[in-house]
Amino acid sequence: MSKDRFTLRRNKLIQAIKKSDADSLLVTNEKNITYLTGFSGDSSYLLIGRKRTLLISDSRYETQIKEECPGLETIFRTRNETIMSVAGKLARKLSISALGIEGGSVTLSAREALKEACKTTELIVCIGLVEELRIIKDASEIAATREAVMQAEKGFTLLRASITEDQTELQIAHDLEHAMRRFGALRAAFEPIVASGAHSALPHAHPRDVVIGDSPFLLIDWGADNAAGYKSDLTRVLIRGKVPAKYRKIYDIVLKAQLKGIAAIRPGALCADVDKAARKVIEKAGFGKQFGHGLGHGTGLDIHESPRVSSVSQQELKPGMIVTVEPGIYIPGFGGVRIEDDILVTKNGCEVLSSLPKEFDAMTG
Amino acid sequence: MSKDRFTLRRNKLIQAIKKSDADSLLVTNEKNITYLTGFSGDSSYLLIGRKRTLLISDSRYETQIKEECPGLETIFRTRNETIMSVAGKLARKLSISALGIEGGSVTLSAREALKEACKTTELIVCIGLVEELRIIKDASEIAATREAVMQAEKGFTLLRASITEDQTELQIAHDLEHAMRRFGALRAAFEPIVASGAHSALPHAHPRDVVIGDSPFLLIDWGADNAAGYKSDLTRVLIRGKVPAKYRKIYDIVLKAQLKGIAAIRPGALCADVDKAARKVIEKAGFGKQFGHGLGHGTGLDIHESPRVSSVSQQELKPGMIVTVEPGIYIPGFGGVRIEDDILVTKNGCEVLSSLPKEFDAMTG
Repeated sequence: MSKDRFTLRRNKLIQAIKKSDADSLLVTNEKNITYLTGFSGDSSYLLIGRKRTLLISDSRYETQIKEECPGLETIFRTRNETIMSVAGKLARKLSISALGIEGGSVTLSAREALKEACKTTELIVCIGLVEELRIIKDASEIAATREAVMQAEKGFTLLRASITEDQTELQIAHDLEHAMRRFGALRAAFEPIVASGAHSALPHAHPRDVVIGDSPFLLIDWGADNAAGYKSDLTRVLIRGKVPAKYRKIYDIVLKAQLKGIAAIRPGALCADVDKAARKVIEKAGFGKQFGHGLGHGTGLDIHESPRVSSVSQQELKPGMIVTVEPGIYIPGFGGVRIEDDILVTKNGCEVLSSLPKEFDAMTG
Repeated sequence: MSKDRFTLRRNKLIQAIKKSDADSLLVTNEKNITYLTGFSGDSSYLLIGRKRTLLISDSRYETQIKEECPGLETIFRTRNETIMSVAGKLARKLSISALGIEGGSVTLSAREALKEACKTTELIVCIGLVEELRIIKDASEIAATREAVMQAEKGFTLLRASITEDQTELQIAHDLEHAMRRFGALRAAFEPIVASGAHSALPHAHPRDVVIGDSPFLLIDWGADNAAGYKSDLTRVLIRGKVPAKYRKIYDIVLKAQLKGIAAIRPGALCADVDKAARKVIEKAGFGKQFGHGLGHGTGLDIHESPRVSSVSQQELKPGMIVTVEPGIYIPGFGGVRIEDDILVTKNGCEVLSSLPKEFDAMTG
């Protein structure tokens, strides 16, 4: 069953390793290990190569590995062995002459420890071998992302019904995580942004211990982490009472830009062009300088992963990619608008995975 | 006010840098940056040296840095600059000939990017310069830890009053985090362990989507993360209904071992001896092999930090250290007991920061 999916991914990686200068790869990035094995714990590395694939873990995870990775050969290190010393010993034992290591996750100290344990093995720094595979999602990953979107949406709907003006941004953020968990999320995919009034002009606002009071707008950027570790990432603005005409104006511009961005998503489109499709709307309206970030990013086991949907990304969209589209206009001292959905690139175009309403009128009350 | 505390820490670090081969240190570990500046955001590095100290961040954090680090000189990189390229440029501009980098947090890719940006600067790998300072907590850190203990204890008391047997381990874990937040915690310090029945025999059990039912014991290992980022770490077992005599027996052994461990904590004691004091009780009772982990660890901005309280640690305890004492007995297929408190080493001995009852009779009902 699920074993096949992981075997398939590992086989693809082994093909990529064959094209590199390494015999085998020591996978140390936790998310990459989850992707390749289904294992959701930590403190474990995967040694993968042409001849042999082995998970290096410790006895705390024995039961979990049996459940999550049936059939995967595993070495359990003892209390007195470090994980790098075991990895190095294995490299020697398996006569690996050139061992790939992940440049993006191995620290200088970790490399030293590994080198110490396998002095005659050449260490080859590899960049993005597993991340390249992770860009295109398979059916199970798409299903998991759909679930994370559902958890985020149900949680938001429950939260929205519960908000009172004597709550702080922080309480609302905490209630939102709790609400998503009611629907099966393991946790929030990231610390939710809950920003009222002028604070919404900060694209990465941290929720404050400040009562929202009668602030006419409340920007919420949130997502869920489903049981398999896949994430959703959405943004909506709740409108309450009388809103300045200027706010309504920028809201409509952002929404128009977001719809244009989504409309540009299809196989073969360049990320830079999708960014441009949305950005043009905002620039034409005279707010180009108030939209200071890229249009979106891939989601998956990480909340931010490839592809980046930005003005400098020449990446071509392909079926199976999942990206956010999240334009914004931020006016310091006044407030900001951002609207964000999660989009799956399909064979013929795209599918918006999220379905919460986003028209201005639907956000009021 | 708070500025003085961070300046003091930075001055201590500058003394340590002077004793190293480096002119300046590029601090890349997030927790180390928080420790040295009070800044709680991410994507930022601190360049600290004899002549000049600079935070490298981006415009998203402008407001936050003003609030959290008043007076700290900050460079904001632009959207098109990477943080390492800016760090490298600064090293050149400030004529740093030997730049220290943190071996434990700089990845191989990050080192390459830095090297690329300052080819003539020698990069010196430094290990633990900031971590060494973090071992001894100052008054503000002790106060923050006390607060995290309070949040964990109040949350637990609220949770305990709410548990019903139709809840799953996962729901209880989620309720516990939500309860701690009621009392000011920003989040759980780590994913709480909630393990019923035989599952409690796994020292690092993940909460399952399994109803606790009438399981006679429920092990909970949890902690709070306070607003300043300091953590608590506690374990209790809730006893319900009729418990096997064997469970009562191991409970009393673990409690006795824990009290012996705590009694051994004072300035000058070796961590290995504290471990031994507790371990002896469990070994004498014939369960030595069922206690497979170290006795405890330091807590602070990280949930696990120095000193390790284990049989191989020759570290001497000093006033201002905060450590957990958490012996356990784990019997596969039957169940486990662990009891954990947070202990401050004082001038004359120690102070148990946590105060939840732990006698067997207090845990029933």
